[in-house]
Amino acid sequence: MVGEKVNGVDVGAVESAVNTFKENPGLANFKFRVHNKWINGGHNHVTVGNFYGANQENSHLKTHELDADEPPILAGEDLGANPVEHLLNALSACLTTTLIYHAAIRGIEIEELESDLEGDIDLRGFLGIAKEVRRGYQEIRVNFKVKTAAENIAKLMALSKLSPVFDVTSNWTNVNVQIERK
Amino acid sequence: MVGEKVNGVDVGAVESAVNTFKENPGLANFKFRVHNKWINGGHNHVTVGNFYGANQENSHLKTHELDADEPPILAGEDLGANPVEHLLNALSACLTTTLIYHAAIRGIEIEELESDLEGDIDLRGFLGIAKEVRRGYQEIRVNFKVKTAAENIAKLMALSKLSPVFDVTSNWTNVNVQIERK
Repeated sequence: MVGEKVNGVDVGAVESAVNTFKENPGLANFKFRVHNKWINGGHNHVTVGNFYGANQENSHLKTHELDADEPPILAGEDLGANPVEHLLNALSACLTTTLIYHAAIRGIEIEELESDLEGDIDLRGFLGIAKEVRRGYQEIRVNFKVKTAAENIAKLMALSKLSPVFDVTSNWTNVNVQIERK
Repeated sequence: MVGEKVNGVDVGAVESAVNTFKENPGLANFKFRVHNKWINGGHNHVTVGNFYGANQENSHLKTHELDADEPPILAGEDLGANPVEHLLNALSACLTTTLIYHAAIRGIEIEELESDLEGDIDLRGFLGIAKEVRRGYQEIRVNFKVKTAAENIAKLMALSKLSPVFDVTSNWTNVNVQIERK
């Protein structure tokens, strides 16, 4: 029933979307977008305005704004989290929402949920100093603490695999980069 | 020379870091972290406070705060960009900083730099409706527009491959998820 909430999620609305996408698979094709404008040095600014989905263009209720920068030790002014911290943010948010939504539609109640993420990176990769060192994270650890019935923990572990950002991070996606002159 | 800036980047400071990491590779091992707290439904909140690097604990000048939520069409209240938009944000920020920093240390001047990112995702994967559909983005397109001398474009294309988030997104990283009861 639309309006019934578990973990603050409108379960009926999610189930309605599931049924819609089963009947009309094309409606499940979404395109998410951001626009990034470089400001100065390590500082750049992102706006998140609209997205495509359910066969139409959709707008956010407001434009979301995000800033990235580097801390002083990495030659920035620290006007925002840095790009690899933003990646951990995306991963933590996606795992959290995946657990909460999928728990909700299965009737699994969660009282509290927190996580700490840590990623190891050897900056010699990014700086091009050592070719054998990868540029990105070597490993990312995610530790959740969840206030819920004990029997739910194993179920939540299985549900975490449904996270889209977990999928992209632990598998791979084709990223097509084009650069043209302005 | 420390203090000389190209593209707003203190080139001397970056070159000094490169020399330090060449002499003492262990100093290049960084650990970045976020803490995520679920608020309600699709809304969760991240704090970015400290990180390890250069053989010590480091604090940001201030704690950076980030929110994720889903738009109403995805059963949220739209109190922030959603997790997969945050992933595009991280990718755009990292590619941008990579281009700007590496251009700077090569003396390549950039006047303006903007990018549009778009990722294709079939939500039947996340919702567990169709097993053959992946959960994450099927493809991500990144289009940069750069105001710089024409001869620099090919160089920038090569430099973009040094981006850590591009590496994680287009390759893969081991993500170790643990869930325990609070």
